[in-house]
Amino acid sequence: MFNTIVNNNNDLVNILEKICGKENVLSAYDEVYAYSTDSTNIVNPEEIAQAVVFVENKEQVIEIMKYAYKNAVPVVARAAGTNVCGACLPKKGGIIISFAKMNKIIEINKNNLICKVEPGVVVEDLQKEAEKYDLFYPPDPSNLKASMIGGSIGLSSGGPHTFKYGSVKDYVIDLEIVTSDGTIFHTGSSCSKDVTGYNLTQLFVGSEGTLGIVVQATIRLIPKPEAKRVMLAYFDTLEDTSKTVNEIISNLITPSVIDLMDKNTLKTIESFYPSGLLTDKTAALLIEIDGFKADINNQYNKIIEICKTNNSSYIQTAQTKEEEEKIWISRRSSFGATAKLAPNVVTEDVVVPRENIVPLVKGIWSICSKYDLKTCIMGHIGDGNIHPNIALDLRNPNEFNNFQQAKKELFDLALSLNGRLSGEHGIGCEKSFYINKALDQNSLEFMKKIKQLFDPKNILNPNKIFS
Amino acid sequence: MFNTIVNNNNDLVNILEKICGKENVLSAYDEVYAYSTDSTNIVNPEEIAQAVVFVENKEQVIEIMKYAYKNAVPVVARAAGTNVCGACLPKKGGIIISFAKMNKIIEINKNNLICKVEPGVVVEDLQKEAEKYDLFYPPDPSNLKASMIGGSIGLSSGGPHTFKYGSVKDYVIDLEIVTSDGTIFHTGSSCSKDVTGYNLTQLFVGSEGTLGIVVQATIRLIPKPEAKRVMLAYFDTLEDTSKTVNEIISNLITPSVIDLMDKNTLKTIESFYPSGLLTDKTAALLIEIDGFKADINNQYNKIIEICKTNNSSYIQTAQTKEEEEKIWISRRSSFGATAKLAPNVVTEDVVVPRENIVPLVKGIWSICSKYDLKTCIMGHIGDGNIHPNIALDLRNPNEFNNFQQAKKELFDLALSLNGRLSGEHGIGCEKSFYINKALDQNSLEFMKKIKQLFDPKNILNPNKIFS
Repeated sequence: MFNTIVNNNNDLVNILEKICGKENVLSAYDEVYAYSTDSTNIVNPEEIAQAVVFVENKEQVIEIMKYAYKNAVPVVARAAGTNVCGACLPKKGGIIISFAKMNKIIEINKNNLICKVEPGVVVEDLQKEAEKYDLFYPPDPSNLKASMIGGSIGLSSGGPHTFKYGSVKDYVIDLEIVTSDGTIFHTGSSCSKDVTGYNLTQLFVGSEGTLGIVVQATIRLIPKPEAKRVMLAYFDTLEDTSKTVNEIISNLITPSVIDLMDKNTLKTIESFYPSGLLTDKTAALLIEIDGFKADINNQYNKIIEICKTNNSSYIQTAQTKEEEEKIWISRRSSFGATAKLAPNVVTEDVVVPRENIVPLVKGIWSICSKYDLKTCIMGHIGDGNIHPNIALDLRNPNEFNNFQQAKKELFDLALSLNGRLSGEHGIGCEKSFYINKALDQNSLEFMKKIKQLFDPKNILNPNKIFS
Repeated sequence: MFNTIVNNNNDLVNILEKICGKENVLSAYDEVYAYSTDSTNIVNPEEIAQAVVFVENKEQVIEIMKYAYKNAVPVVARAAGTNVCGACLPKKGGIIISFAKMNKIIEINKNNLICKVEPGVVVEDLQKEAEKYDLFYPPDPSNLKASMIGGSIGLSSGGPHTFKYGSVKDYVIDLEIVTSDGTIFHTGSSCSKDVTGYNLTQLFVGSEGTLGIVVQATIRLIPKPEAKRVMLAYFDTLEDTSKTVNEIISNLITPSVIDLMDKNTLKTIESFYPSGLLTDKTAALLIEIDGFKADINNQYNKIIEICKTNNSSYIQTAQTKEEEEKIWISRRSSFGATAKLAPNVVTEDVVVPRENIVPLVKGIWSICSKYDLKTCIMGHIGDGNIHPNIALDLRNPNEFNNFQQAKKELFDLALSLNGRLSGEHGIGCEKSFYINKALDQNSLEFMKKIKQLFDPKNILNPNKIFS
């Protein structure tokens, strides 16, 4: 069953048990199968790992990598597996290192505005802990209740708050890395400002576990905003929606969130999780502003005026914490609601310079209509980052083929609008087939050389990013 | 005189003239000498270039690099030469490529919140041009009236506004790079959010021209703040100064600037550029707050209260644009004023986690007193980033030796406080002697391997960063 490089599975399991204890190793088929999946919906039963090991400290990771390097065993570092690009599928078998048990928040230092964490810390747990110190960790992937910092770093996750606050890359200042041969080193320091040598930290952030394994991270935190307000503004045309976004920014306001939901998204959420969304509008903007109490009204009034000038047909403003939460829950239900339309849901993730957002969204509507795919479009319009959620039955060959065709056309469309393959979800093995077309060949060559430099035996998360 | 690799200087000059035109090549000793210096005050007359060439487009850079690669001629890319770490000294002779004529702001795109620039654009010119669009480019090295974007990118410059807004690395999203063999490629894209492949952009930002030559940059801009206010708060102890900074941040305020000037700095500025600074205080904080008009008073009142609680003995607030400008001019005169104390002034740049700022500053006072060095300390206290400006006569062997000793002790002190060699000035050839001590050996090894990957013949700005 396991057509991988190590011949004797027992040897591998014995070694892992010796390093991490019997209780921390899984090798039964069904158990290993469960960890050989992620949220991408695509598992090849031939491509499962030989063993899963739950590490408890970095010394164990070093030992595992020394063994793996010597024996050329593929290794996939796994956090929560909530990614949607096949970023932690064990394409060549081998070992899955789960960081679920390395989940300590080691330190939150208010005076230095930093924290030190292990890779298995759940994103929302870090946010909540930071809040106790009146601090804020902004990156908020929509699965933040489950997703872990290690995966977030691997994919340089974003989320709705990226428009104002940036993504994971803007917060990580030091990583402790174990390389393919078990070498360990720090990429940066605990100083938020540091130009001592090359910026290795950012080489690892977003590298999807293909260059090294993160065993600890130092992350910047910022003072939390004093106040916020959340509203939904509805529009009858995409053009008005987009113009509203531009005008808000022209008026010197940087909303903490400015997200788009299209008609299908509004309808689908409302069908399954009724919360009073209007379903007869072309699009809605979810706008959150934050800052000091003294200026929230000022920002709010300006935004309402801009929305009205640009023909917003209805504006809902959360008046209480509960109403705010309700809007957020409905927005975060878009994936779950779309999932109820068909056996599977696939989330795509393309990004364009914001001036091209209207042709991008219209193009996606047109492609999905051509291939008869039920699609709900939402995304972070401020960043030009759009997620089509596509509901389909992947077991149906016709739907599967249509989806594959649509995907190619979606990528072609994004590139034709000066866009890119991924704004925040990563490449994994789901988009790697397209990377040659998406990247400048010279740039790609250097990336491959860097991969070879850090991972000469190609054992770290093989077959990801590059095809 | 030129002990470099190319034997025939005429050949080199002829080739450069052929590529860029006779009017764009300098080869007379005195002319080349002038371009073989920077603001570091240290020039070795043996280490000057063979020729200076003023490029006008990227095609010329490609041609020069093809020639240089084939003939193993060292190349130093030079912007304004305002750095203070010997970052563009031609340690091995060769060619200096000046970007002074590639100084176009190619595009400012308000809807995409980006600009595209050539490396020779002066930082202040970009800021002023951005302002016309109500946009803001925050990184502001103190020499921003002269320093150019290309150099800023090479060193990942910061400045007073880094505390709230980050440094150059936080704004650059794409670089067009010419490598050592004349290959050209883009590191990123015009999308502010982009995880398509490794983050090569940040590998080049801060790499001091040792990995490739920047010929164009795409830079994020942000909406400019609506209002600001500037004040100076004086303290009798460093402890009170530091406590004030912590409490301001604990009160959820992120000042756009929070800079420190010590007693010597206040006195020295006031001696040469009198502007009403108080000279009998231990330290002053220059605090700038920005944001919406509606909350400026709110922030201001809180800060005044915090300063008073922490025993600030005097607070000056700029009441007019002119008073604001006056405070800034005096703050920016610290280097120039110190320069009047002795034939030379050397600016150092160390950074520590902010909780260690008091022992850092006290330690610097003590080291400089021990070696009898006239030192004015200022810096970006919010970031833990301190600049001792040391006035001395470098031609005096005694003073020179004392300075070298003091420098080593300064670096030892910074490292002992979990700090780093440089927060924003870079390593160049002035701090490279210490890099082995400052960096994790494994980290250093990977940096050197990356250098070799991009520059196998070691012709790009040799002898920088690494010793």
